[in-house]
Amino acid sequence: MARLVVLYKKPADPAAFDAYYMSTHVPIAKQIPGLVRYEISTGEVWTPQGASPYHLAAVLTFDSFDALHAGLGSPEGQAAARDIGRFAPEGADMVMFDTRDV
Amino acid sequence: MARLVVLYKKPADPAAFDAYYMSTHVPIAKQIPGLVRYEISTGEVWTPQGASPYHLAAVLTFDSFDALHAGLGSPEGQAAARDIGRFAPEGADMVMFDTRDV
Repeated sequence: MARLVVLYKKPADPAAFDAYYMSTHVPIAKQIPGLVRYEISTGEVWTPQGASPYHLAAVLTFDSFDALHAGLGSPEGQAAARDIGRFAPEGADMVMFDTRDV
Repeated sequence: MARLVVLYKKPADPAAFDAYYMSTHVPIAKQIPGLVRYEISTGEVWTPQGASPYHLAAVLTFDSFDALHAGLGSPEGQAAARDIGRFAPEGADMVMFDTRDV
């Protein structure tokens, strides 16, 4: 199992961000081949010390790192990456990794 | 469902970090009440652009944000937090959030 964690920085207009994200970005990102689960944060994104610099977290799950890598490199993955530039000019921090349970 | 994502910065001695993490930190962190799943990264932690500043990612899952918050505030959660100071002086970035599937 592999995870892509996307942390969107706080936007100038959170309501506009949320509206675009749900109505437009989610349907685009759900087209990424190999995506098996797509979760988003509800409520605030916190750190153990309190507020974080992030407005929204998304966790995209794939069966393997190879599937994740292929998905992001596909036309649908590239379309999703381009779309982020349209609604998140503040940027997003992303990490991706293969996982195992311990 | 709620997630705690811990991103450990690259340590001076990765082999010592890994040995301590697996032998000592995992058993301590697994005692946190309410923890229902504990995943760690295998291999590198990447960004879509290439290398990340992180050595290891951990994703800890709880049934709810309340359970996560209570778990971190418990004696076992505080012991796990203190333990991080022993093996990760470079620090770790952490975010935590409630999630829903989209």
